[in-house]
Amino acid sequence: MSHNDWLTTTPEPPYTAVIFTSRRTTTDDKGYSEMAQLMGTLSAQQPGFLGVESARGNDRVGITVSYWATPAHAQAWKQVAEHIGAQRTGRERWYEDYATRIATVERDYTMDTSTFE
Amino acid sequence: MSHNDWLTTTPEPPYTAVIFTSRRTTTDDKGYSEMAQLMGTLSAQQPGFLGVESARGNDRVGITVSYWATPAHAQAWKQVAEHIGAQRTGRERWYEDYATRIATVERDYTMDTSTFE
Repeated sequence: MSHNDWLTTTPEPPYTAVIFTSRRTTTDDKGYSEMAQLMGTLSAQQPGFLGVESARGNDRVGITVSYWATPAHAQAWKQVAEHIGAQRTGRERWYEDYATRIATVERDYTMDTSTFE
Repeated sequence: MSHNDWLTTTPEPPYTAVIFTSRRTTTDDKGYSEMAQLMGTLSAQQPGFLGVESARGNDRVGITVSYWATPAHAQAWKQVAEHIGAQRTGRERWYEDYATRIATVERDYTMDTSTFE
């Protein structure tokens, strides 16, 4: 898959997707934004990181999907100390609620390769 | 997982996630919006449909994740006639580009069950 900057160029499946769906509280936009940027930088430095896609609408619901070479790589990022701190503040302050799902991507296609079948 | 209306209540893994990342063109907001609503209604009537989560930001990048009981259920929805028509118009008119990834969710947790480890 070869792409624009908002789409991740992922290898042939299988690879790992971490789907994070959340709703932001209305508090501390500045702190959240700074931490999100820091976590983006840190995650991109982790072994096995393939890329990330993210969207958040005006209703404050957001979905971030990060892609990893293996489930072990995704799990290792969850346990990085700075990330644990961010997760804790997220739960206490930035998110009304969230869900995280760890998945193995088995097939993929793009606009160029889609067949509608 | 038990949730708000913007979060899907999914069963114990494994289940299937279809991750659709796209960027909207600036054309035909009305037609796109009507079709998106229709496809939302139709998909919810399909066998094996578990729910859908969606976000689109001001940069027009969006992520929609639909959840299905099995990969076969997700594949069957891709082949529903009305959906094939929507996919074609999406490619021709509504999307600059997109990627679709079909994945098996193997673990999940929510804010209530997260342990930071």
